[in-house]
Amino acid sequence: IYTVKWEAKQAEKDGYAHFMLKEIHEQPRAIKDTLSGRIAAGDSGVTLKEINIPEEQLREMNKIFITACGTAYHAGLVGKHIIESLARIPVEVDIASEFRYRNPLLDRNSLVIVVSQSGETADTLAALREAKRKGARVLAVTNVVDSSVAREADDVLYTWAGPEIAVASTKAYTTQLVCMYLIGLYLAQQRGALGPGETAEIVAELRKLPGKVSAVLENGSDIENFVRQYSNCGSVFYIGRGLDHAVAMEGSLKLKEISYIHAEAYAAGELKHGTLALIEKDVPVIALATQADLFEKMLSNIKEVKARDAVVVAVAMRGLEEVAKEADQVMYIPRTHQVLAPVLAVIPLQLLAYHMAVARNCDVDQPRNLAKSVTVE
Amino acid sequence: IYTVKWEAKQAEKDGYAHFMLKEIHEQPRAIKDTLSGRIAAGDSGVTLKEINIPEEQLREMNKIFITACGTAYHAGLVGKHIIESLARIPVEVDIASEFRYRNPLLDRNSLVIVVSQSGETADTLAALREAKRKGARVLAVTNVVDSSVAREADDVLYTWAGPEIAVASTKAYTTQLVCMYLIGLYLAQQRGALGPGETAEIVAELRKLPGKVSAVLENGSDIENFVRQYSNCGSVFYIGRGLDHAVAMEGSLKLKEISYIHAEAYAAGELKHGTLALIEKDVPVIALATQADLFEKMLSNIKEVKARDAVVVAVAMRGLEEVAKEADQVMYIPRTHQVLAPVLAVIPLQLLAYHMAVARNCDVDQPRNLAKSVTVE
Repeated sequence: IYTVKWEAKQAEKDGYAHFMLKEIHEQPRAIKDTLSGRIAAGDSGVTLKEINIPEEQLREMNKIFITACGTAYHAGLVGKHIIESLARIPVEVDIASEFRYRNPLLDRNSLVIVVSQSGETADTLAALREAKRKGARVLAVTNVVDSSVAREADDVLYTWAGPEIAVASTKAYTTQLVCMYLIGLYLAQQRGALGPGETAEIVAELRKLPGKVSAVLENGSDIENFVRQYSNCGSVFYIGRGLDHAVAMEGSLKLKEISYIHAEAYAAGELKHGTLALIEKDVPVIALATQADLFEKMLSNIKEVKARDAVVVAVAMRGLEEVAKEADQVMYIPRTHQVLAPVLAVIPLQLLAYHMAVARNCDVDQPRNLAKSVTVE
Repeated sequence: IYTVKWEAKQAEKDGYAHFMLKEIHEQPRAIKDTLSGRIAAGDSGVTLKEINIPEEQLREMNKIFITACGTAYHAGLVGKHIIESLARIPVEVDIASEFRYRNPLLDRNSLVIVVSQSGETADTLAALREAKRKGARVLAVTNVVDSSVAREADDVLYTWAGPEIAVASTKAYTTQLVCMYLIGLYLAQQRGALGPGETAEIVAELRKLPGKVSAVLENGSDIENFVRQYSNCGSVFYIGRGLDHAVAMEGSLKLKEISYIHAEAYAAGELKHGTLALIEKDVPVIALATQADLFEKMLSNIKEVKARDAVVVAVAMRGLEEVAKEADQVMYIPRTHQVLAPVLAVIPLQLLAYHMAVARNCDVDQPRNLAKSVTVE
C-alpha cells in the first residue's frame, strides 16, 4: 500500500522535483481562478456574491480584525495595509493564538476576518468562535470547501488555489493576498471610499497579475548563483518598509521552514535600533524595494548594511533600477500598482527558499517538526 | 583631555564593570522615582498632574496609538496590553519608521503616545509631528527634560530613570513600563473603567515593585552557569504568550545588541507554524511563563521544544513551579499582579544578555554599529 501511495504522489508532481516547486508554478493559474467571476468586465469593480453583510452592518462597521497563524497571518499583515488604504477602515492583525486569549475589544460593529488554508487550524478556529461569542461578524478566507472554518463563519471567500501538498505554503499565500484585494475593493465600493478611476486602475492591474507572475517565474534562475555561494550561511536577514516589510516576514518564514536557516525579517527603519549589530562581512541581507514612495529611505537602509559589508540581494520593482548601484544582485518584478507588489515580490523569495533547501539537501515538501495543517494547539 | 574624560566616566560606574550593569542595578531606585508623587496614599489611584487632557477629549477618545523605536517600541507593546486591559480603549502599536509613512487613520479623537528615552529619536519625532498635523493629541513618555519630543508634545510624562549611558537600554525600559501602568490606571480612572478594588490592588503592587526588582537582582547569578555552557551558540529563541511575548521581544533585542548572537522572539503559539523547524539538539530557548492564565498552554510549548532536545531556561513567576519539571533551569520572579510581571521578568533577561556579552568579550556599553540615540533616519 505504501509504495503505491508514494507512486501516486510522485505522479501528481507533473514532472517537478517537489510539490513545492509545482505549487509555486501553479500560482498564475491559482490567482486567475481566485479572481475569476469576481472582477467585473470593464474593470468597474468587484462582485463578491459570497459576502452577504447587511447594509446597516456595513455602514456601521468601524473596526476589522484579521486573525490567522503562520503564512496566513502574513497575508493578514498585507491585508491590513490594503484594507486601510483602499477602504479607510482601521484594521488590527493578530496571531490567532494571541487573539483568542487576549480578550480583544470587539463588538457588533467589528468584522473579524479569519484566514486559514486548511480551514482546520485549531487556534484560528478558536479565534473565530471567540469572535462570534462576542457578537462580531466573521468572514473566512480559506482554501478548503466545507472546512470547519468555512462552516462556522458568516461569510466565506474561497481561495481557488487547489490542493496544496507541500508544508511550506506558496499558492495559498498569493491567493489569500488576492482575496485581501477583493475584500479591500469590495468594502471601498460599499462605503464609497475609492474613486472609480483608482478602482478601475487596480482592477485592471489585478487582471494582469497572472501574466506578471509568470514573467517573474521565468526569471527565477537568477537566484541560483547566490544560493550556490551562500547555502552554508548561519543567518539571513530580510528587510523592507511598509508592504515590503510584510512580504519580508513571509520570505523569512519560507527560508526557516524548509532550509532550517535562521532567517529573520525587520522593518528596515528598525535596523539602527539594534539589529545592525548582527550585520557583518558576508551576512546575506534580502532587501525589498518595490514601493516607490519609500524607495529613498530603503536605499539608505541598503547603504547602511553595505557599509558593514553585508551581501545584499534586492527584490525591486522595474523603474527603481537605482537600487542596482548599491545591491550585489537585483531581481526585478514587473511594474504594477504599488499596492499589488507583494504578489510579485514574494515569488523570488519562494524560489530562493526552495533552491536553498535543495542545495542543503533538506526534505523540501516535508520539513522536520512541521505539519501541513496545525489542527491541535 | 581624552584621558581625563575616560577617568571621569570610569568614576561614574560606581565600582561596576560596565555602565549597563550599573544601570541594571539602578532599576529599583529608578522605578521608585518614576512612581514618586504619582500614586496616591491609601492606594486609591494615580495623580498625573502633568497630563492635562480636557475632559471632553478624554470622554471622546476612542483610539490610542503608541509609536516608538527599538526598546521603547517594546515598552509600547506591553503598554497596549496594559491600557486595553485596564482602561478598555483600543490601542495600536507602531514602529515609528512605519507609522510616519503609512498614513494612519487618526483624528481628533485619537491619543498618540510617543516613547523615546532620549526624546530626540528622529523617526519618533517625525511620527509625533505627523500625529499633530492630523489633529491628534500627543502624550510623550521620555527620560530627557526639555528634549525635542518633550517640547513638541501636548503632555509629557517623564521617566525619572536618570542618565542612561550604555547603548543597550535597561532602566529606561522598565521606567517606560511604569509610565504605561500609570497611564493605564489614569485613563481607567477618568473613564471609570476599573473598580476601586482592582485599582487599589495594582497600586499597592506597584509600590512593592522596587523591592521585588531588588530581590530578582540578588538572584541574578543563577544565569552564569547557563552562560558558561552556551556562550558560543549561534541562535537563541525567546518564547512567550501575551505580555510574556512582548517581554520576550525585549529580551531577544538585548542579546542581539550586545552579544551579537542571533536571538529572535516568538509568540509561543506560532512555533508550530514554522519556527519549530529550527529547534534541534542544544538550541537554547528562553521561555517566559509569568502569566497564570496562559500557563498550561505555555507548558505545552515548552514540552514541544524539549521534545526536539532544546535546552530550556524558563523565567517563571513563583507559584508556577510546575515549569521546573520541563525546563532545564528556572529563574523565578516574586509573585505580583499578573499585569506587572514584565517589569520583573525582563531583569533576568537583561542579566543574561549582559553576562553573555562579557563571556564573549564584546564591548558591552558601546556595541558595534549602534548609537545610543538615533537622531538621524
